[in-house]
Parts: sequence; C-alpha cells; structure tokens
Amino acid sequence: LPADFKDNLNKVYEAIEESDFLAIDGEFSGISDGPSVSALTNGFDTPEERYQKLKKHSMDFLLFQFGLCTFKYDHTEEKYIMKSFNFYIFPKPFNRSSPDVKFVCQSSSIDFLANQGFDFNKVFRNGIPYLNQEEERQLREQYDEKRSQANGAGSLSYISPNATKCPVTIPEDQKKFIEKVVEQIEDLLKNEENESLELEPCTGFQRKLIYQTLSWKYPKGIHVETLESDKKERYIVISKVNEEERKRREQQKQAKEQEELNDAVGFSRVVHAIANSGKLVIGHNMLLDVMHTIHQFYCPLPDDLSEFKEVTSCVFPRLLDTKLMASTQPFK
Amino acid sequence: LPADFKDNLNKVYEAIEESDFLAIDGEFSGISDGPSVSALTNGFDTPEERYQKLKKHSMDFLLFQFGLCTFKYDHTEEKYIMKSFNFYIFPKPFNRSSPDVKFVCQSSSIDFLANQGFDFNKVFRNGIPYLNQEEERQLREQYDEKRSQANGAGSLSYISPNATKCPVTIPEDQKKFIEKVVEQIEDLLKNEENESLELEPCTGFQRKLIYQTLSWKYPKGIHVETLESDKKERYIVISKVNEEERKRREQQKQAKEQEELNDAVGFSRVVHAIANSGKLVIGHNMLLDVMHTIHQFYCPLPDDLSEFKEVTSCVFPRLLDTKLMASTQPFK
Repeated sequence: LPADFKDNLNKVYEAIEESDFLAIDGEFSGISDGPSVSALTNGFDTPEERYQKLKKHSMDFLLFQFGLCTFKYDHTEEKYIMKSFNFYIFPKPFNRSSPDVKFVCQSSSIDFLANQGFDFNKVFRNGIPYLNQEEERQLREQYDEKRSQANGAGSLSYISPNATKCPVTIPEDQKKFIEKVVEQIEDLLKNEENESLELEPCTGFQRKLIYQTLSWKYPKGIHVETLESDKKERYIVISKVNEEERKRREQQKQAKEQEELNDAVGFSRVVHAIANSGKLVIGHNMLLDVMHTIHQFYCPLPDDLSEFKEVTSCVFPRLLDTKLMASTQPFK
Repeated sequence: LPADFKDNLNKVYEAIEESDFLAIDGEFSGISDGPSVSALTNGFDTPEERYQKLKKHSMDFLLFQFGLCTFKYDHTEEKYIMKSFNFYIFPKPFNRSSPDVKFVCQSSSIDFLANQGFDFNKVFRNGIPYLNQEEERQLREQYDEKRSQANGAGSLSYISPNATKCPVTIPEDQKKFIEKVVEQIEDLLKNEENESLELEPCTGFQRKLIYQTLSWKYPKGIHVETLESDKKERYIVISKVNEEERKRREQQKQAKEQEELNDAVGFSRVVHAIANSGKLVIGHNMLLDVMHTIHQFYCPLPDDLSEFKEVTSCVFPRLLDTKLMASTQPFK
C-alpha cells in the first residue's frame, strides 16, 4: 500500500467530516466497449435503456483515478475553503487467493489521458488497491479461519483454558510423532533454563495434530507459533510466556491482521467515508462515475435501474449533477 | 510517432539484414483471460486444443513491448556481436476513422511488470503504433480516395488537362456563388501582380463544386488548395504556379502522404523486415509471442492450427524455441 495514502488517510477523513459538500470526478481506462462512443447512448434512450447500455458496455473498464474535493464555508473570511485529493487506484492482487482482476483499456481514452500528462506509472506501480464489500467479507473470513486453525506460517496461538476439552484422535502412524512432541514439551516446562523449544519441520497435518493435542493437554495455556525457515519449511516453536506477554503478543498479532485487512480494503475506505458522511456529492455528467464507484467499491451493479437507484441512494444519499443542472431550468 | 523510432529504423533494418540469426521476446498486458493461468493449458492438451485455448483466452491482451536481438558472427574476433532493440508498442488512434483498439489488462501481469520496473508511461505516451495488413490496405485506400476527391483540408490539387471535360451541374441556389468564384479567378489570372487568391470559407459541398468547376474550366491547370483557419473553418486558396513548382508541390504532398502512411504502419514495418529477411528467429517458450505477433501485425488468427502453421511459416519461415529444445533430446 502506498505510504502516502496511509499517512494522509486521517486528513482525508477529517476533510470529509468538516466539509459542507464534496465534489468527485473519476478517470477511466475507457468509456465505451460498444461500436462507438457516440452511438452507445443517445438522447432518445429511456433512463432504463441508458442504464442497461452503460452497465453492459462500460463496466469492464477500470476507474483508475478518483479526484475528491471538499468544500467548507469559512464564515469569517466569507469564502469556501477547498481541499483536493487525487487517488490513483489499481487492483493489485493482495495474496494468492485474492481476485486477479481483468479490465479493458480503450486506446482513444488512454491516448487522451496521455496527452493530458496522465501518469500511468503512478496507477500501475503505486495504485491503491480496493475490495468491494463481498471481497472484504471473504478476506475477513479467511483471517478468522486462519486464526481458528492457527496452523499457517507466522500464526501465533494462545492455547486458552476454553479450548478443546476432549482428547484428539491421533491416527496410528502419527502416535509416535505426537508422543515425542509431548515429551519435548514436558521437558521444556520442567526445565527452568529454557524459555522456548523449536520443533522439527513437519507436515501441515502434523502441525494441526500438534495444535489440537496441546490445546487439550495444556489447558492452562502455552504459546505455539508456526514459523517458516529460509528453505520455506514450516516449523513450530513452543514458548513459555507469562500472562502479560501472552496478551501483548496476541493483541499485536490481531492489530497486524487488522492493518493487513485495512490495507486490502484500501481506497474503498475513502468511499465508505464519503458514503457514511451523508454529505452532498457533486459531479459533472456523473452517471458513469457513480456507476463505476458502486461497481468497484460496493457490489456488482444490479440488474435494473430501480434497484440501482436504491443502491445509489444508500451509498450517496445526496447527489447533484452540474451538467444536468446546466441543461435544465432555470440555468438552460 | 516517437522520433527515436524513426531515427533508428534504418539501424534496425541494417542489423536484421546483416545478422546470422535473431531472438525475440514479447511482454503482454496479460497472459490468460481464463479461470486461472495454470488451468488454462496443460501437458495433456493436444496441439490443436492448446492453440484453440490460447486463441480464445489470450488474444485480447496487448503485446506492448517487443524485444529484438540480432546476432552476427565476427570471424576475426571469433565471437558473436549482439545488437538489442526494445520497442514499446501502443495502438494510438491514427485519425478519426482509424480503429479504436480495446485490449484487456490482467492485474497480476501488470503488477509483475511493475515490480520489474516496467515503464508504462513509455508504452501509453510514446508507444509506436501499428497496423495489420488489412488496416494498412484500408488506410492506403482512404488516401487514394482523398487524393481523387481533393476536397479535404490541407489537400493540394493539380487540376490537370485530363480532368473532367464536361460542365458541372450547379444547383440553382449555388450558381451565384460559383459565378462569383469564377470571376475572382479570372481577375487573378489577368492580374500580373497577385500570385494567389484566398476564397471565403464555405461548406464542403461548395468546395466540391469549386473543385469540379475549376477542373472543367481551367484544363491547363491551376493550383487549388484547401486550408483550415484558426477557427477551424476551411477555405480554398487558388494559386498560379509554373509547371516546375507545380510538380515539386505535388511530389512533396505525395511524399508527405507516404510518410504518414509509414508512420501509421509503424512497428509493423519492423516485423515485416524480420519476416522478409527469412532469418532464423529464436525465442523461449515462444508460442504466445508468435501468436500475438501475427495477430497484431498481420491478420486475425486463423480458425485452426493447420492454417495457423501455414501463416506462421509465411511470416517466420525458420523458428527455434529454446524451451522446447531444452525439454527434448539431446538436452533434456
């Protein structure tokens, strides 16, 4: 995650919170996947037709730059104070199981942006990742599952008194292995000189058996951690730690996980902040901006216009399109 | 067209011509549009299945960097002299009627290239355009048509003795306008002080009538040129030029058109030079490189493998894949 995004996120939140209204503008990797831009939609389309065409032909492009301006009226100075933020956005794969997003580029749009001096390296090298709500939920589940298994590399587990109360079923061919591990731990607990014990690398199944056995055998709790060697072999480290240190480590680990999750949710957090603020959001010709924003940071677009309106009113309760304003009374 | 490409094109041609063999390597905006890269093709596919899968799932990506190395054996030094060239490629729309290419990007591939320090700005801002053979033919036809109409902005026409021999049918409401134009030209031809005459801006239809009328009225030839004002209004300039100047201008114009055409064909010219050289072309795991090269710079990929082999043997008569070599006898 780009450092300057993380460093400035609180400033962005603050600017949104204190603002009277916001303005947004997106840049896309393309506009129309249809036969030609002007032929895609026209003034004779019903709103439903227009929505359907844009949903079908424009959502495969990437919203890769998001501009946000916050406006706050200063009563003393009698003028608006504006703050502007520019976010480069790219769906960098987060881990091996994260979605490998494919998106379409339209050469005329790319060429237009290139002529405006658009920095493509900033998008593709330092773009901020994002997840929609379903992807965020799935990633959160992955973390929960990993924590409950406490079986992956780098995981640190506090075997608590509330853990499994009944003995684990150990397959015949693993009994000797587990017995040896338990002996080693008994030695560690008796010995006052050693604080920790490193077990030999073993299989994932064996690690699972160790975790389950220790959880049952040592209800008072010991610390079990899976680490990875230089050779990418995973091994378990058992350590005696006092209650305080144990809690500290547990909290540290959870904080790290929460940070990883926040990093993956990335730019979506800014959109959530805009949505949750309930502030008036202004754009110019903003239908595509709104559609892309919901599509990338919330959920796949619904099938029909009425549902889209519902979703939109949840995400952006107050919207104002200056192009629409300019083309209707009293401004026309 | 990037200046350094044009400046160095002859060096590239020369290196290809004098080489003993060539090596190529492409970078793509993505590898697989299928469910997952490893699932796309496997060792159990027949060659036909493999070709079909790659054609279906991989051709929507863009080959946007093409590396070329030329190798020439120096008998005195007893070693190979290598020259390497790196081309960034982008289908920048050439004019209003040129194809607006859409291509897919895969975030894992883009992220991989970003980590290698790949310069996306070079691709999208300064990429070399290209045309396949059908697009080149169409553009050539457009130029021919424009020349025969001699009606567009910037076009310069020599109204030759062989032009239309019969009077043009002028619609009633345009007669006055054309009569006035003819009067102005008569004045110009009588007057020895003025060398040229600028007509008022007029419609495309009026320009067409002027061209047709002059072609019929002045079979000995005068020079007619359409220019565009700062306000984007098109207007006609009539000039008296002697035979020599007339030929010089005509040649200059044709040379400029030829250059524009060459610029549009762009990187395809390098591929044509490789193909025409008949030199041995080496790659590593090069099936995708060959497929993309033919797809972008020659023609859409044929429906089945046997036709693809035929096309390939025309474009690259001698191919050698070092990955295939390494995995077969005697190297395995």
